[in-house]
Amino acid sequence: MIRPACLAMLVSAGLGIAALPFALPAAAATSAPADQVAAEAAPVLVSAAQWRQMAQNGSRYPLFAHEQARAAEALRKAMAAGVVVPPPKDPGGGYSHEQHKRNYQAIHGAGALYRLTGERAYADYARDMLLAYAELYPTLGKHPAGRGQVPGRLFWQSLNDSVWLVHASQGYDAIRDTLSAAERRRIDEQVFRRMARFLSEQTPDSFNRIHNHATWAVAAVGMTGYVLRDQDMVDKALLGLSKDGKAGFLKQIDDLFSPDGYYEEGPYYQRYALAPFVIFANAIERNEPQRRIFAHKDGVLLKAVDTLVQSSYGGYFFPINDAILDKGLDTEELVAGIAVAYAQSGDAALLSIAERQRRTLLSPEGLQVAEALAAGRAKPFAFRPAMLRDGPDGDRGGLAILRAGGEDGQTLVMKNTSQGMGHGHFDKLNWLFYDNGQRVVTDYGAARFLNVEAKAGGIYLPENSSWAKQTVAHNTLAVNEQSHFGGDWKLGQRHAPAPLLFAVTGDLQIASARMQGAYDGVVFTRTLALLEHPELGLPVAIDLLRVQGSKPARYDLPLHFNGHIINVGFDAQRALATRPVLGKANGYQHLWVDASSEPSSEPRTLSWLLDGRFYSYRFGSSAPSRAILAESGANDPDFNLRREQALIQRVDGQPEVSFFAVLEPHGEYNGTAEYVRGASSRIRALHRVRGDDAEAIVLTLASGASVALAIADDPAPERRHRIAIGGKTRQWTGGYARFDMPAGEQASSGTENRTP
Amino acid sequence: MIRPACLAMLVSAGLGIAALPFALPAAAATSAPADQVAAEAAPVLVSAAQWRQMAQNGSRYPLFAHEQARAAEALRKAMAAGVVVPPPKDPGGGYSHEQHKRNYQAIHGAGALYRLTGERAYADYARDMLLAYAELYPTLGKHPAGRGQVPGRLFWQSLNDSVWLVHASQGYDAIRDTLSAAERRRIDEQVFRRMARFLSEQTPDSFNRIHNHATWAVAAVGMTGYVLRDQDMVDKALLGLSKDGKAGFLKQIDDLFSPDGYYEEGPYYQRYALAPFVIFANAIERNEPQRRIFAHKDGVLLKAVDTLVQSSYGGYFFPINDAILDKGLDTEELVAGIAVAYAQSGDAALLSIAERQRRTLLSPEGLQVAEALAAGRAKPFAFRPAMLRDGPDGDRGGLAILRAGGEDGQTLVMKNTSQGMGHGHFDKLNWLFYDNGQRVVTDYGAARFLNVEAKAGGIYLPENSSWAKQTVAHNTLAVNEQSHFGGDWKLGQRHAPAPLLFAVTGDLQIASARMQGAYDGVVFTRTLALLEHPELGLPVAIDLLRVQGSKPARYDLPLHFNGHIINVGFDAQRALATRPVLGKANGYQHLWVDASSEPSSEPRTLSWLLDGRFYSYRFGSSAPSRAILAESGANDPDFNLRREQALIQRVDGQPEVSFFAVLEPHGEYNGTAEYVRGASSRIRALHRVRGDDAEAIVLTLASGASVALAIADDPAPERRHRIAIGGKTRQWTGGYARFDMPAGEQASSGTENRTP
Repeated sequence: MIRPACLAMLVSAGLGIAALPFALPAAAATSAPADQVAAEAAPVLVSAAQWRQMAQNGSRYPLFAHEQARAAEALRKAMAAGVVVPPPKDPGGGYSHEQHKRNYQAIHGAGALYRLTGERAYADYARDMLLAYAELYPTLGKHPAGRGQVPGRLFWQSLNDSVWLVHASQGYDAIRDTLSAAERRRIDEQVFRRMARFLSEQTPDSFNRIHNHATWAVAAVGMTGYVLRDQDMVDKALLGLSKDGKAGFLKQIDDLFSPDGYYEEGPYYQRYALAPFVIFANAIERNEPQRRIFAHKDGVLLKAVDTLVQSSYGGYFFPINDAILDKGLDTEELVAGIAVAYAQSGDAALLSIAERQRRTLLSPEGLQVAEALAAGRAKPFAFRPAMLRDGPDGDRGGLAILRAGGEDGQTLVMKNTSQGMGHGHFDKLNWLFYDNGQRVVTDYGAARFLNVEAKAGGIYLPENSSWAKQTVAHNTLAVNEQSHFGGDWKLGQRHAPAPLLFAVTGDLQIASARMQGAYDGVVFTRTLALLEHPELGLPVAIDLLRVQGSKPARYDLPLHFNGHIINVGFDAQRALATRPVLGKANGYQHLWVDASSEPSSEPRTLSWLLDGRFYSYRFGSSAPSRAILAESGANDPDFNLRREQALIQRVDGQPEVSFFAVLEPHGEYNGTAEYVRGASSRIRALHRVRGDDAEAIVLTLASGASVALAIADDPAPERRHRIAIGGKTRQWTGGYARFDMPAGEQASSGTENRTP
Repeated sequence: MIRPACLAMLVSAGLGIAALPFALPAAAATSAPADQVAAEAAPVLVSAAQWRQMAQNGSRYPLFAHEQARAAEALRKAMAAGVVVPPPKDPGGGYSHEQHKRNYQAIHGAGALYRLTGERAYADYARDMLLAYAELYPTLGKHPAGRGQVPGRLFWQSLNDSVWLVHASQGYDAIRDTLSAAERRRIDEQVFRRMARFLSEQTPDSFNRIHNHATWAVAAVGMTGYVLRDQDMVDKALLGLSKDGKAGFLKQIDDLFSPDGYYEEGPYYQRYALAPFVIFANAIERNEPQRRIFAHKDGVLLKAVDTLVQSSYGGYFFPINDAILDKGLDTEELVAGIAVAYAQSGDAALLSIAERQRRTLLSPEGLQVAEALAAGRAKPFAFRPAMLRDGPDGDRGGLAILRAGGEDGQTLVMKNTSQGMGHGHFDKLNWLFYDNGQRVVTDYGAARFLNVEAKAGGIYLPENSSWAKQTVAHNTLAVNEQSHFGGDWKLGQRHAPAPLLFAVTGDLQIASARMQGAYDGVVFTRTLALLEHPELGLPVAIDLLRVQGSKPARYDLPLHFNGHIINVGFDAQRALATRPVLGKANGYQHLWVDASSEPSSEPRTLSWLLDGRFYSYRFGSSAPSRAILAESGANDPDFNLRREQALIQRVDGQPEVSFFAVLEPHGEYNGTAEYVRGASSRIRALHRVRGDDAEAIVLTLASGASVALAIADDPAPERRHRIAIGGKTRQWTGGYARFDMPAGEQASSGTENRTP
C-alpha cells in the first residue's frame, strides 16, 4: 500500500494521475474547485467525502476495481466516438434510441470516473455532452416514433426519458462543481429542469400513476430536485403533484409492494421497478435521513430485494405475467438492489448474489459490497419455501413457492396472486415446476423480442395478447375456451384468489387456493404439493384441481411441458399428415393438434426426457376426459412464437369435475457414459377418493405401498374429517393430511372408491 | 512423502493397508502370490512392475488420484450389491443389459484397485463374479432379445459381448495370479476361452468383417489371447481367422482409417471404434513390441486420436452420419485414446483435452498423463482448418474443416467423404456451420435414444431410416424428391466425391468438391468458403452449388437452421391454420410446410436469432426458385423426431441451376443489459456472375464496396480464367480468386451480369 502522504509526494513530483490505476484524486483536481464553488454545486447524491473514500480504497477490492475498469473501458469507447447527440427518430432498438442510452450511461460513468480518478477529461466530456443536450432538448416535441405508451422527447416512450434522467442526474451531480456558473445554469435549466418538468407537470397522469413507469418518473424528478436544490420538485416526487400523498413515491411503495415485498406485476417488473425504488430511496436517505425511507412500511424496500431473489430459479426470475425468459439475477437493476440493500441490512447472504452477478455499483454501497466480499464475508443465499402475499395489505392472494433439494432441486410455483394490472396474465392458480436446473412445467412468459426492431420495433408482439396472456397458454383451468375474466384485466383486478393452505413440513409441502369470479358461476379450488417418500428417488408434485360449476361446460386443463416425449401412455388419434388447429380464439387458434384421445375416466400417463432426467406425468379426472397433445405456433404469420408442447385434459358437458395428477422426476439418461437408470416410473397407479367433505389422491408405489394426500373442502384448522381409503376410514383434523400405507393395506381394497 | 521403507514399517506394525489411501501394495499381498504362481499367471496387459509404479506414485497426481477414488466409489457400490449375474433377458437399457455392463466395469475396476491398493477383497470380488459367469456362460444360447445385429450371449448383440470381454479381460489379467490353479482353469476355460471362441470361430463372418463391431471382437479375442497365453488366438485377432491378413486387426487399421486418420464411418463411430483400436494396440505394444503397432501405416492410430479431436466443436463431435448429438470429447473411449496417444507421442496439446475430460485411465499411460498435467505441461489444443482425406489410400473424398476465430469461432464443415457404410447418410457435399459456440446450420444426426427402452429398446428408430439418413434431412441437393443413390448405401459405397479445392489463407478459406453418381445424369459441384472482410464484423460463409443435369428436374436445396426466425425477407403463402406435409417419401413425408413462395430469380433473405447473435442468410439461384419454410415432425406417430426448421430452395423443370448464398453472423442481442447492436445485415446485395468457364459470387456491402469470389469450373492451378464483374474484366490463374472492389467500382455497373 502506498499511504496517502506518499502518493501526494508522487503527484507533486509530477507523476500524472493517469499513470496510476485507480489513484486518489489529486488535490489539484478536486480540492481546488471545491474551494471555489458555492455549496449549491457540491455533489449531493454521493458526497464529496464518500467519493474520496471510494477513490482511496476502491482499488483494494477486486469487485469494485473490476467495475471501475469496466466503466473506464466503456467510457473510453464513448469518448473515442466523441459527443454524439442525434435528433430523436427511432423506436426501441433503433440507432437514435441506442445512442441516447449510451449517452446517459456515458454521463453517469464520466461523473463517477472523474470523482474516482480526478481526471478532468471525464468531467469535461460529461459537460460537453450535457451542453449538446442543452442545445437539442429545448427544440424537441413529441418523439416521432412515439406510440402505445406515453411518447417521450428523447425516446419513443417517456419511460425511457425518465431512465435517462435517473442516470444523467447522478453523473451531473458528480461534475456539477467543475462547471462555470454559466455552464451550470445552462445545463440546470435547459436540460434537467426542462426534463423534470416534462416528466411531472407536463405529463401529470403519467407522473401520478401507481405504476412502474411512474416510479421511474418520480425517481428522475426527485433526484433532479436534490441536484438542483429544488425541494418543491423533491416533494412532488415523494407525495405527488398535489403534494397530498395520494400519489408519488411513498404512495407507490405503499400500494405496489405487499407487506412481503411482492410487487403486484410480478418478478419481471419487480426487477425493472426495483432500480428507481432503491436508487431514489438511497438518494432520499442521503439527503433527508429523517424520513427513514428504508424503514417505511416496515422496511418493505429491503424485503423486496430479498423477495425478488427468492422469485428465481437457476438464476432466472419466475416468468409469470409479461416476462422475458432471459431476465434473472444478473440484471443491472438487481445489481443496484443488492448493493443498496446490503449497505442497509448487512445481510451476508446478499453478498453471494453480488458474487454471482460479478457486478456492483460505483457508489459507497458498491464499495461496502466489494469490501465485504474481499473479506470473505459472503454466505450462501437460502432459497426457501415461501408464501409471498400479494396486495398492499397482503390480502390479495399471493405467490406460493415450494422448494426441495436446494437451489437446483425441485421448485413448484403456484400463482395465486392478483391480476397484476395490464401486464398480468389470465392464469389464476397457474403453476410452474422446475427440477434439475430446468424448466419442466413452463410458463410462456411474454411474446416479445426486447429492442429487436424487426420484431414490431421491440415492443410486445400481437401474439402477446392473442397467446401469451391467454388462459390456455398456462397450466390452469379454461372454461368453454374462454380466458379468465373474459380477457379483461380491469375486471381481473377486482378478483383475487383466496389462499386456503400453505404448509411446509419435512416430507410434504402444500399450497392451496380457491378462485371465484374468473368465470361466471364457476368456482375452482386447487391444491399443489411436493411430496417426498423413501421409495421415490425425488419429490413428486401432486395436483388436485376441483371445479364446481353451475351448469355443464367444457373444462380444459393444459400442462405446458418441456422435454422430448418418450412415451404416450394412452391411445390417441394422431394428426400425422395434416395438422389442424385446436380452436378459433383466446389462444386456441395458436395450438396445433398432434393427438387426441377418446374420452375416458381411466388415469393416463405421459413421459418425457429433459436434460438427462425422465418425467412421468400420471393424470386423471373424476368425469370422462380427452387427452390432447398440442403445440404452439399456429396462426403465427410472422414466426413470433416459440413452438412448445402442451397436454390438455378436456372434460365436456359436466358441471363439476376434479382433475388430479402426479408429476414424477426419475432416473437418468447419461449420453456420455452411455447408461440409463430408473427410466420407469416408480408409481404404479394413481386414484382419487371422494368423501363427504374431502377428497384424497392416492399413489400406489412399485412395492405396493401407497401414500395418500387428503384435502378437506374447508381448510379450517380445527375441523375434523374422515374419508375411506383402501377400505379403511381415515380421520384427521385440519385442511389436509397425509397417510402412508404399507403394501398389503391399500393394494387389497383400494380401487372401489375411485370416483364419487 | 512417506518413503517405501517407512511404509513397510507401518504395515509390519499392523496398520491395515485399507487405512492408507492409495497406499503401496503390501509385500504380503502381491509379492507372496507372485513368488508362488507360475509365469503363466502374472499380469501381461499391464506388468506387475507397472502396477507397482502406479501404486507408488498415483496418489501424487490429482487426476490419477481422482480417477482411482472414482473407481473405488463405483466399486464400493457394486460390492455392496454383491455378485449379481442375472440370466440375459433384456435389450439395451433393460435391467439384465445394464447389470452385465456394471459387472464388466466392476471386474475391470476390481482388478485395477486390487493392484493399486493390495486389498485382497477386490481380487476376491472379481474372482467370485467371474466364477458366477463360469456357471452361467456355458448354459447360454442366443440372447432372447437378439435382433437386428448379430445376437450375443450375454447381451442382445454380440458387439456388447465383445465390449464385456475387452474390459473383463483387463480385470482378470490383474487378479489372475491370486487364484488357485483350479479357479484359474475354470475361469480361463468356462468364461474367457468360451467367449473368445464364440466371438471368433463361432461367428466368423462377424469376426472377419472390416467394421467397428469386428474391431471390438478382435480386440476382445486378442487381449484374451495374451491373458491366456494363447498365441493362436492373438494371431487370429491380428490377421483374421485364416491368419492370412485379409481380415483382423491390421487389415482393419489399413482399411478403416485414411492416411489422415479419418475413420470411414465418421467421428461418432470413430469415437466408438477408437477404444478397441488403442486399447488392443497398447496390449500388442506391451506384449509384442517388435510389431511396432503404433508405427503401422505411418502411425495412423495416433493420427486418428488427433483427427477425432479436430472433428469436434464446442466439445461435441460433428454429428455426421448416424451420430447422437451429445457425444463429444468427454467420452470414455477418447479418455483411453488421449492417454494411449500421449504416452506414445508426448504431444502436450493432448493434455489439455485430458484436462477437459477430467478423466484418465488407471494404467501406466494414465499415470503419465496425470503426471504431466500435475507438472503443468499442458498446451492448448490447436483446432485448425484441415482437410481429412477419406478412404484407405486417402482418395475417397474427405472431410473439409474451415475454422476462424478460435475454438468458439466460426467452423464450417463440408462433408465430401465417401458413404461410410451402413451408418452413412445420403448427404454428399453436405455442410454444417458453427458459430459463437452454437450449431447454426445443423445436421440432425441419428434418430435414436440410446439405451432408452421405451424408444424401440434403444436402437435406431424407424425415423432414422425414413428421416435422418435421407438427403432432404441434410443441407445438400435432392433431385426429384429422391435421396442420393436412391437410398442404397451399397451403391453409395461405390461413388466418392472428387475434391477440387482446399485452401486456407488469411482472409479466405475455401473447399470445393464435385459429385457424380449420386443421381443418374446429374453432376453437382459445390464450393464453400469462409470469407473475412474489414467491413464485416465476423467471417461469412459463402456457398455456390452448381448442378448440371441431363434433363429438366426438380432440384431442392435445404438449409436446416437453428434459431428463432426474426425476419422472412420474401413474400410467401403461409400455412397458418392447417399444416400440410411436403411430400410422400424419402424424408419429405416428415416435413410440415409453414410457408411457400412463388418462383423467382431474385435473391431473398431470411434472418434468425440464436443465443444472442443474429444470422442473415441471403440466397438466390440462376433459375427461378421457390422458398419453402418447413419443420420436421410430420408422420411421426411415436414422437420420435425433434422438431427443427428448414428453408428449402426449390427449382422446377430445369436441367441446370446454380444455387448461391451467403450466411452472415452479426450483431448482438443482450437480454441482461437490454441492448441490441448490429441487428441489420451489413451486406446490401448478393449476385452471381457467370463467365465462360467460371462463376463469381459478388457481395455488395453497406458502404457500397464489394467483394467477389470467383470459382473456375476447372480447378487446375495453372489455368487462366477471366470473368466480367462490375463492368470490368477480372483475370486470374487457378481454381479460384478473390476480388475486392471499392465503393464506386462495383455499384455503378454490377447488375447487368446477374445470370448467364
